[in-house]
Amino acid sequence: MPGVPPARYAYLGPQGTFTEAALRSLPAARNAELQPLGSVGAALDAVRSGEADGAVVPIENSVEGAVAVTLDELSSGDPLIITREIHVEVQFSLLAKPGTAPVDIRRVATHPHAEAQCRRWLATHLPDAEVILESSTAQAAAIVAVQDSPYDGAVAAPIAATTYRLATLASNIADRTDAVTRFVLVSRPAAPQPPTGSDKTSLVVFIRDNHPGALLEMLEQFAARGVDLTRIESRPTGTALGEYCFFIDAVGHVADQRMGEALMGLRRTCADVRFLGSYPRADGKVTPVGQGTSDSDFTAAQRWLTSLRNA
Amino acid sequence: MPGVPPARYAYLGPQGTFTEAALRSLPAARNAELQPLGSVGAALDAVRSGEADGAVVPIENSVEGAVAVTLDELSSGDPLIITREIHVEVQFSLLAKPGTAPVDIRRVATHPHAEAQCRRWLATHLPDAEVILESSTAQAAAIVAVQDSPYDGAVAAPIAATTYRLATLASNIADRTDAVTRFVLVSRPAAPQPPTGSDKTSLVVFIRDNHPGALLEMLEQFAARGVDLTRIESRPTGTALGEYCFFIDAVGHVADQRMGEALMGLRRTCADVRFLGSYPRADGKVTPVGQGTSDSDFTAAQRWLTSLRNA
Amino acid sequence: MPGVPPARYAYLGPQGTFTEAALRSLPAARNAELQPLGSVGAALDAVRSGEADGAVVPIENSVEGAVAVTLDELSSGDPLIITREIHVEVQFSLLAKPGTAPVDIRRVATHPHAEAQCRRWLATHLPDAEVILESSTAQAAAIVAVQDSPYDGAVAAPIAATTYRLATLASNIADRTDAVTRFVLVSRPAAPQPPTGSDKTSLVVFIRDNHPGALLEMLEQFAARGVDLTRIESRPTGTALGEYCFFIDAVGHVADQRMGEALMGLRRTCADVRFLGSYPRADGKVTPVGQGTSDSDFTAAQRWLTSLRNA
Amino acid sequence: MPGVPPARYAYLGPQGTFTEAALRSLPAARNAELQPLGSVGAALDAVRSGEADGAVVPIENSVEGAVAVTLDELSSGDPLIITREIHVEVQFSLLAKPGTAPVDIRRVATHPHAEAQCRRWLATHLPDAEVILESSTAQAAAIVAVQDSPYDGAVAAPIAATTYRLATLASNIADRTDAVTRFVLVSRPAAPQPPTGSDKTSLVVFIRDNHPGALLEMLEQFAARGVDLTRIESRPTGTALGEYCFFIDAVGHVADQRMGEALMGLRRTCADVRFLGSYPRADGKVTPVGQGTSDSDFTAAQRWLTSLRNA
Repeated sequence: MPGVPPARYAYLGPQGTFTEAALRSLPAARNAELQPLGSVGAALDAVRSGEADGAVVPIENSVEGAVAVTLDELSSGDPLIITREIHVEVQFSLLAKPGTAPVDIRRVATHPHAEAQCRRWLATHLPDAEVILESSTAQAAAIVAVQDSPYDGAVAAPIAATTYRLATLASNIADRTDAVTRFVLVSRPAAPQPPTGSDKTSLVVFIRDNHPGALLEMLEQFAARGVDLTRIESRPTGTALGEYCFFIDAVGHVADQRMGEALMGLRRTCADVRFLGSYPRADGKVTPVGQGTSDSDFTAAQRWLTSLRNA
Repeated sequence: MPGVPPARYAYLGPQGTFTEAALRSLPAARNAELQPLGSVGAALDAVRSGEADGAVVPIENSVEGAVAVTLDELSSGDPLIITREIHVEVQFSLLAKPGTAPVDIRRVATHPHAEAQCRRWLATHLPDAEVILESSTAQAAAIVAVQDSPYDGAVAAPIAATTYRLATLASNIADRTDAVTRFVLVSRPAAPQPPTGSDKTSLVVFIRDNHPGALLEMLEQFAARGVDLTRIESRPTGTALGEYCFFIDAVGHVADQRMGEALMGLRRTCADVRFLGSYPRADGKVTPVGQGTSDSDFTAAQRWLTSLRNA
Repeated sequence: MPGVPPARYAYLGPQGTFTEAALRSLPAARNAELQPLGSVGAALDAVRSGEADGAVVPIENSVEGAVAVTLDELSSGDPLIITREIHVEVQFSLLAKPGTAPVDIRRVATHPHAEAQCRRWLATHLPDAEVILESSTAQAAAIVAVQDSPYDGAVAAPIAATTYRLATLASNIADRTDAVTRFVLVSRPAAPQPPTGSDKTSLVVFIRDNHPGALLEMLEQFAARGVDLTRIESRPTGTALGEYCFFIDAVGHVADQRMGEALMGLRRTCADVRFLGSYPRADGKVTPVGQGTSDSDFTAAQRWLTSLRNA
Repeated sequence: MPGVPPARYAYLGPQGTFTEAALRSLPAARNAELQPLGSVGAALDAVRSGEADGAVVPIENSVEGAVAVTLDELSSGDPLIITREIHVEVQFSLLAKPGTAPVDIRRVATHPHAEAQCRRWLATHLPDAEVILESSTAQAAAIVAVQDSPYDGAVAAPIAATTYRLATLASNIADRTDAVTRFVLVSRPAAPQPPTGSDKTSLVVFIRDNHPGALLEMLEQFAARGVDLTRIESRPTGTALGEYCFFIDAVGHVADQRMGEALMGLRRTCADVRFLGSYPRADGKVTPVGQGTSDSDFTAAQRWLTSLRNA
């Protein structure tokens, strides 16, 4: 049946990584065309240029790293907005060609971060194996899959087993079992989805100068409206806009009155504010609404003010 | 000629006080009917009941005292608003019956506050005179004016010379020469006059509780919008609304965007807010407008927010 | 028996006022010599000069007014400190010469504030009496006591009955029954009494300038150490030290670590700080000690810091 | 000559990276034994166990990534402190076997971050070359150096030319020329070096809960003492100590009075504080000392407080 062409999503490749797993967890990805790209910048540029309808990239402490790059790429260049946040459990599997037994594994490849997170398991279960580092866990798995591979196994994301047709010899081998990493789906600017009551708003705020108290004044713009933060991260800017910018995730939606007023306060008083989107929280936590900060409180206060002005 | 009946203004009496001088300094008082009343409460109630169109009462550190009473009377009962602030130079004169020479003055009457403010002058110029205290400087002058008065002179407001047909033997006799006292003209609620660019807004704010930081949070509602204060005064309330209320004079006008947003912030988060009016500053100081806090900054920020919400 | 001369206390006169009642409520006043003086300034100067060992003056919203004067007198001149705070219930009595019946009272004298506070009672019980205002309730009572007095009765403090040998025709006649007024005992500077766990510390703080946020920064010196306030009152200074000063009552004692650190913070960052004493609270409320703000918390933190510096 | 054994420093390997360049920039490294280790954790553990006297690891936005890992490793486990901060200019070179001409380069290997930072240069100067990603730029250079290498060139740190005996075909090829990355030298806990007047103090602060305003209250501990921040980064903790911790770099030295008082304030009021060291700033910026925040201001304030307490 002829029809609408499938959506196209770029993601930070290669195939077989947690980023691909994040993208595949989205219903919208099911019938879409998925493009692994070599860097976060390439994935975002594919969206900017219209080649892709969206891109999934890591935004926080991923085993594939790259987070600082994502923040920098989002804070400059043509605007993009985050429309989804995706949590993926960071779990590793030991993968090998079908038929390989654990005892056969003498050379195991992985990414340095994965090595760090599975060190104890590797020391216990593969004490004699040599660990070789590759540029990604997926790359490690890919090399295991080739004929006459120099490696006997790979520590990689579970999804890499499917991608590279490998067998899973052991799963959940990370030393710490509760790690989650966070990815975002990024699109070209558009009106945000309506609030769900469990939303997050991401911003980049450039402060004007750095006197003691400048950060405090910036945060008062949130506090005075009862808006809470779940993330703040300063980064040097090296530009004329001031020494520092701040990546901020605030609890709530741009459509909320309190969030809107806080954003306007930042816009008025800071050197610059870049809106990176309002989207549902992956953890589903309901936005707490403090006394006097609901939309109806704002509306009632506006009515009162109008009555004072026009008494 | 039949016509509009003259305006009627009440004031804290008796006649011949600084309060009357404050009222008479208003152009509107020229052809009006002026009623001295025995207390601040009586003067304000005359406005509430419609007997008077306005009332002039002291609001700050008057030589006639009564300020706490004024604040209490304004913070409860039917709402009233301040429409003018009036500064009167606190200067005292030595008054006596025409024909009296300074050497004849052995008994001089005045109010305790006036005595305190002219003590040095009295010690120097009337070292042997006995000082008798009366309930007001005007009362002292009135008694001097009667036949067979027990007093030879009075320390009183310059206006009392006219009121009681006394001679001014010495003027500007206060030890400190720069004292100013502040009065307000109070009316029934009505739309405030338009901003002049040199305005003040008076409020009573009732905070919800008194944890360390409650006052700070209240003041952040002003600071986050760049609104400065010229006065803050806490008073115990003894009511269910919280232990304390605060009398606040803020710089600017309720019609200013930043003031409006600050007022709404207080309204939303505090137990109660009573608006006491926006009016021109008696000292004529131009309202400073900090970076990002002008009306056009607010309008631009609102436009930006709208564009984010509907992109 | 020759011995120690009795202590001498000055107070804001005349005799028979709430101020005298406040002073007489102190055990130390029992065998002391009490001197009524004509003004707050005179009473404080008697302490400064050594003529008196202490003085009792009103510090908050007294029916005898004078509070602004007290604050001004304490904030300039030779330093004095508050060593006691005294609450006196504001209750009025109708006093007359013994033998007078209520129906005989056609002219009743009192102070304007007392008139304001008993207006409803007077309207109900003495609807036909003329009310004459005097400079103090005690003055009114004194005049009632003279032979051939022009007045039949006085509304005055209960203590005035004793002072002027008058009969109490009615007591507790104030319209509002819960009013309390606050007085302080002031002495020459000396080490404060030890903390009781229910203490207050009074200060005058002069801020350096008045940018929006200056007040906030000053209050952060308290909040950062968990010190709560029970009173704040701004007053214009008209001096080179900055446009405003603030009268502050803070909860706790100068000997408390958190109060000491807050005072030092103010001392370092404000134009000037005048310490007005640490003394037991008249209301007996126990000082709340927030998490991490007890003396032992400070000591533990100091030990930790020392270990970091000398590890 | 028998004598003191040389100092031993671990670093995040492999050889030939910016991290090694950072370590080699230290005078102390000249005669020391340098050990490349496979992960940040391994390098830090070598210090903890005593195998190494210090370790150099990336702390901010390195091209080798790993920063989040460094923060996590420093915030848990046995305490370590930062004793030096090292800035390295992020510059890349195109390396190849001696005798290779640029036109011969058809396959060039590098790390994904380096690829991102040199993309424009590669597109311009090697438009037809295939770029292959390796786990580090050093790894890429190492492979270029082997006989029959699958790669013709590597984009790597300048130092890799020496390490792997390669020729530098082009240098300074990053698209952005001002990038700097930050490394730290970490040691076992010891008394910090004396202040230099250009110092930084690193901390991990765990807040108790996350009500709106909790972050603000934490930052007030710095602001109330006039301590400025150059970095703040929140991280979820997932522990009983509260939802978030904050990595903070503050301007000044633990030996400074204002910094000491701020640290004690955090220690008292936050769930936990981990001190990560006071050390000279790599950028040499002199610590600004705000009005009232110098050590002599603290000493004078302490003297004043003592005089109040013992007057």
